[in-house]
Amino acid sequence: MSKTKGRVTLPSEGNFLEETKEMMDRWGADALRDSDGTKLPEEIKALDASIYTTYFVARGHNEFAEKHMDECQQMYLMSSRVTAADTVVEISFMEGYFDQQVVPDYVHDCKRWWEVMDRTVGQPVDPGQWQVDKERNVVTVSNAAAFHEYTVSFLVFAIWDPTQMYNHITNDWGGKPHEIPFDVRQPASGQYAKDYLVQWLKDNPRTDVVRFTTFFYHFTLVFNHKAKEKFVDWFGYGATVSVKALEEFEEEYGYRLRPEDIVDNGYYNSTFRVPSRHYLDYMDFIQRFVAGKAKELVDLVHEAGREAMMFLGDNWIGTEPYGKYFPEIGLDAVVGSVGGGATLRLISDIPGARYTEGRFLPYFFPDTFYEGNDPCLEARENWLCARRALMRKPVDRIGYGGYLSLAYKFPKFVDYIEEVTDEFREIYEKIGGSKPYCGLKVAILNCWGRLRSWQAFMVAHALWYKQTYSYFGVLEALSGAGVDVTFLSFDEIIESGIPEEVDVIVNAGAAGTAFSGGDRWLEERLVTAVRKFVWNGGGFVGIGEPSAVHGGGRFFQLADVLGVDKELGFSLSTDKYFTKPMENHFLKEDQRSDFDFGESVNNVYALSEDTEIAEFSDGEVHLSAHGYGRGRGVYIAGLPYSHDNTRLLLRGLYYSGGREEEMKRWYGDNPLCEVHAYPEKGHYAVVNNSMEPQTTMVYDGAGKAHEVKLEGSQILWEKM
Amino acid sequence: MSKTKGRVTLPSEGNFLEETKEMMDRWGADALRDSDGTKLPEEIKALDASIYTTYFVARGHNEFAEKHMDECQQMYLMSSRVTAADTVVEISFMEGYFDQQVVPDYVHDCKRWWEVMDRTVGQPVDPGQWQVDKERNVVTVSNAAAFHEYTVSFLVFAIWDPTQMYNHITNDWGGKPHEIPFDVRQPASGQYAKDYLVQWLKDNPRTDVVRFTTFFYHFTLVFNHKAKEKFVDWFGYGATVSVKALEEFEEEYGYRLRPEDIVDNGYYNSTFRVPSRHYLDYMDFIQRFVAGKAKELVDLVHEAGREAMMFLGDNWIGTEPYGKYFPEIGLDAVVGSVGGGATLRLISDIPGARYTEGRFLPYFFPDTFYEGNDPCLEARENWLCARRALMRKPVDRIGYGGYLSLAYKFPKFVDYIEEVTDEFREIYEKIGGSKPYCGLKVAILNCWGRLRSWQAFMVAHALWYKQTYSYFGVLEALSGAGVDVTFLSFDEIIESGIPEEVDVIVNAGAAGTAFSGGDRWLEERLVTAVRKFVWNGGGFVGIGEPSAVHGGGRFFQLADVLGVDKELGFSLSTDKYFTKPMENHFLKEDQRSDFDFGESVNNVYALSEDTEIAEFSDGEVHLSAHGYGRGRGVYIAGLPYSHDNTRLLLRGLYYSGGREEEMKRWYGDNPLCEVHAYPEKGHYAVVNNSMEPQTTMVYDGAGKAHEVKLEGSQILWEKM
Repeated sequence: MSKTKGRVTLPSEGNFLEETKEMMDRWGADALRDSDGTKLPEEIKALDASIYTTYFVARGHNEFAEKHMDECQQMYLMSSRVTAADTVVEISFMEGYFDQQVVPDYVHDCKRWWEVMDRTVGQPVDPGQWQVDKERNVVTVSNAAAFHEYTVSFLVFAIWDPTQMYNHITNDWGGKPHEIPFDVRQPASGQYAKDYLVQWLKDNPRTDVVRFTTFFYHFTLVFNHKAKEKFVDWFGYGATVSVKALEEFEEEYGYRLRPEDIVDNGYYNSTFRVPSRHYLDYMDFIQRFVAGKAKELVDLVHEAGREAMMFLGDNWIGTEPYGKYFPEIGLDAVVGSVGGGATLRLISDIPGARYTEGRFLPYFFPDTFYEGNDPCLEARENWLCARRALMRKPVDRIGYGGYLSLAYKFPKFVDYIEEVTDEFREIYEKIGGSKPYCGLKVAILNCWGRLRSWQAFMVAHALWYKQTYSYFGVLEALSGAGVDVTFLSFDEIIESGIPEEVDVIVNAGAAGTAFSGGDRWLEERLVTAVRKFVWNGGGFVGIGEPSAVHGGGRFFQLADVLGVDKELGFSLSTDKYFTKPMENHFLKEDQRSDFDFGESVNNVYALSEDTEIAEFSDGEVHLSAHGYGRGRGVYIAGLPYSHDNTRLLLRGLYYSGGREEEMKRWYGDNPLCEVHAYPEKGHYAVVNNSMEPQTTMVYDGAGKAHEVKLEGSQILWEKM
Repeated sequence: MSKTKGRVTLPSEGNFLEETKEMMDRWGADALRDSDGTKLPEEIKALDASIYTTYFVARGHNEFAEKHMDECQQMYLMSSRVTAADTVVEISFMEGYFDQQVVPDYVHDCKRWWEVMDRTVGQPVDPGQWQVDKERNVVTVSNAAAFHEYTVSFLVFAIWDPTQMYNHITNDWGGKPHEIPFDVRQPASGQYAKDYLVQWLKDNPRTDVVRFTTFFYHFTLVFNHKAKEKFVDWFGYGATVSVKALEEFEEEYGYRLRPEDIVDNGYYNSTFRVPSRHYLDYMDFIQRFVAGKAKELVDLVHEAGREAMMFLGDNWIGTEPYGKYFPEIGLDAVVGSVGGGATLRLISDIPGARYTEGRFLPYFFPDTFYEGNDPCLEARENWLCARRALMRKPVDRIGYGGYLSLAYKFPKFVDYIEEVTDEFREIYEKIGGSKPYCGLKVAILNCWGRLRSWQAFMVAHALWYKQTYSYFGVLEALSGAGVDVTFLSFDEIIESGIPEEVDVIVNAGAAGTAFSGGDRWLEERLVTAVRKFVWNGGGFVGIGEPSAVHGGGRFFQLADVLGVDKELGFSLSTDKYFTKPMENHFLKEDQRSDFDFGESVNNVYALSEDTEIAEFSDGEVHLSAHGYGRGRGVYIAGLPYSHDNTRLLLRGLYYSGGREEEMKRWYGDNPLCEVHAYPEKGHYAVVNNSMEPQTTMVYDGAGKAHEVKLEGSQILWEKM
């Protein structure tokens, strides 16, 4: 590959001028950034590069915040549950919370803004029945019902920004001041945020790109009394709450939110919850506010002739890059951290920004860069995983974070990233803004739809959870697959039907979650729309517990489409005859070893002999297909990410759509290889997703095949 | 052991006189019986033995039945589901049913007695919207809603008794007439049943015991169009239905049952369903009728100076041996088939009969008694398994079935049963009617309570199901354990609280089933009563998904008691800190190898550090305990039957009741051995439940221990 330059951002630091120049040259970097805790010295800023500067809107201004503690951000928290063994119950509601992060809000009337819940009957307790002891942080409930459980939903002021708190505690920053988060909805804070930015832009003339980290409200991150994480929701709106917000909401929507609308039984409206109408209203309300306020700041940046970039994370709540208000903010760019293909697409598909940047792994931190460790391993894995997605829809830039001086000490790593940055630029140049060939249009169907594009099944950003990996694998597989991916909500189907261009619908998730859909599947318009879609030739792929809610003698409401249902114990009396897998089936033509359905699902059985059972073990169906009108339903018990499962999913998509004849177009038959074609550009790429050499048959757009040999991780570009 | 005689029933047959005498002598039999398909010849009947004769009330009288086809038994059946792809739907409702077993009832008005259901919205279709084509057995629905699923609930006449049908088909009986089941609720049939019995008693003077096989209504057993089992529910009331019954029900209860009350979405009110009020009313209605009618027959038997014995199975529906009407029947005896300990207790605990008899395995049939096979293996396994339960509450007699001539050909088997029968008589003599020492009173809590004593988790009698063995093991373990076992329903607790004498409550089963309890756990009186019970020192052992129904932020409604809950995905944002099992815990002091939780339960986690985690693997808790007031909750993820799991359960019971100090009373520390003490009799037995020699420490009633060595399967009787 020839030496190229651009589209790469590096961190830098003090006393590292010559090496920075060398690294910029080798990696072709055209932008430099500071990191959390590092500042770029003037000599670095003077280099021929675009300068990014991290900017905190609502934290890191303690000189202001300390004077306006009544404008601190707020949250609703739920106390522990306390059982009434007697008629009087004392609830030490702050127990288990970190008093350096949150303090009870005694400024506003507790009787008006707090709620004591009888969790056993799900009803609030009359405020006349409880008292707050502000000295001891105790709520005392009188006339309690014996052996009911009680909780207090109480308002707190947040007095420590969670990201700084995490870094502070993790890195043992000792006496360093705690950054106090203030709420720009409040008058002084709102004004301050703008005034400070105006001045800051004047004070930082060399900053080309203001890197907002981020705007106003942090995702929900609450620590416990031992200063350890207690609750984390990367999507949580917990920190957006305030008395002022609730009052403004009431005025606008004509009804009052209860604390329970936010606290939600202690689930705090996790994205796994089928969202309530009240919570959707509240999200919309916050999004509009955030977009409006953020626009004011972005406008100031533009007026000063600079670019505005948003970090996708930390205080990003309410920006909702796939929401309807996001484009109004007018950002130039979004930058986010790339953990793999799905997180790359989460960034690169954002429609409302001029360009996107992915921060790749590993961070240049001592946890990876220590003597005896080879940081190339993590880098290579991260790159190969994300590269699949880049081939479909690239971010416009890539970057790294941490201490450049640390990476510099690992010459093999520097060599490898030199290759990576060159390869990235080559890919970007070859693909440009063109749309790759897509064999199918696939819609992921859940409660959230487009708003949570590439964000399903996530709790903390990109972390592994036993309960999610078997579903998140679907997104990861799709992120680099040769299909067009869209996200569809139940509400959209109910309101306007299934979009004409969709070929296959995927519904994946555990029963009752927003991703599977829970009660929504009892809605007649939803279930009939999907049935009709398949009947008329569409495909439906159900993964895990699709359309699952018990009703009408079914657990899978689309059991008729899928040809399988899950035995809950109620129909054990009905003989299950169909237990023999077919010897050969389109779905398993690539099977090289045992299937891996991850956590899988128990007790799924075939309804009739019409169900094509592709895999049956331990008395259960884990993979099957079923004709329904002119379309098909395909069932997969779980899909952790792997190359084999990516291929299995692709087969499921084509088979369900009745287009299995068309699968081998721009296709490599070796599951470790993929082919991406760019008709507008007149070329295609054969990609080896593994680190070992591979041989694959490559099928062109007409299905004609030829053999190709590839080096480990090689991309071979060919004319069409 | 000395040679004893009595308490044993043998089958006999023609041309087998001398051998029968020999076998009677060796096995000490004092009763002889015929079997299905064999008749005792006069010479056998003349022997010095009580003669049992099988008697069929409502089948095997085709000379009557054929003249009264309008009095055939009836059922409600549900058709297959048919999707409306158009506005007109045709439902071939007999499709999938066996036309030699059932025929549509066109005698009664279909519009009045049938129901077409729109399963998508769960509503019946207006009868004006559908028509029946009686020629083609087709229901046509007009103005159907697109992509709704429709079913027909239709009445049939049953024209073949299911037990005879099964034997007929299995044994290829060819042209042998199909026995037609008639309904004694109908005038002619009711009269006939009595008249025939009166005459039969006259015609069979040598019969001492009339063995009713059984009374009026067969458990639900429906075959498909290929003459294979389609639906089987050993508890099903399906065959009790008739237009007459429904009319009488309406008159008595003041409301009309709908077909859907019986069809129940195709689940047909399986015992796994939380029963509806309507279905409970219907069961009660049938039980009263059956008890009354059966009493009439039993009275006739008694008037003729004979004994009346009921077979527990086949046409036993509505007798409900643990129901409130059963004692009114006035039976002398109940006989049933023994598959293990729980099925033995199911017979031996029946309160309303003078004596009970267990039919042991194997049957003397060619499937076991063939050259090269050793029938002793099955016999020994069956005996050792059932013997545990015998030691707690013996049946009064044991017996065998099949062809005695076949068993006779296996001398080792004859030897072994000689030992068994002598051992049985010795046990019976030693125990008499005395109550063994019980360390605890344990109540199994579910929707059914006492009515389904020892009958939980069963589908077809004693058959293994993947979905049930992890729960049925609880009953099997308890059947021979040194505790007093009682069965308690939610309704009893709600109406009259938890009985004073109960020490520990066990709730076991899969979420949503009648055994776990489903929605019932949302009832405040239930959940508070159990909490209070434990708080005051009672024990609660939850197995599988105890008290499971999603509500109020919990899945296990008694999560506060158990200290664990199941993650459904909604609280993934909450950190789960407690993942370390304790190195030592009372619950696992007998652990010899990996625990076996059977199908187990996923995603159970500890709520706080107060939860004592005894086993944690694969990111989940499977065994734990938790203090709650003065009592404890114990959680076990599943309990397939084994000696180790019996011990684990015992430990759970004692620990939850806070009485672990008292466990080692009349106790053997080797899990393969058990000690049963009979204070009224002044002796105790040390039992080796295994076939190999064992050594065990034996603890007396004061907890003093001494070592005992036992031969394989030995029982050692000692004075107290």
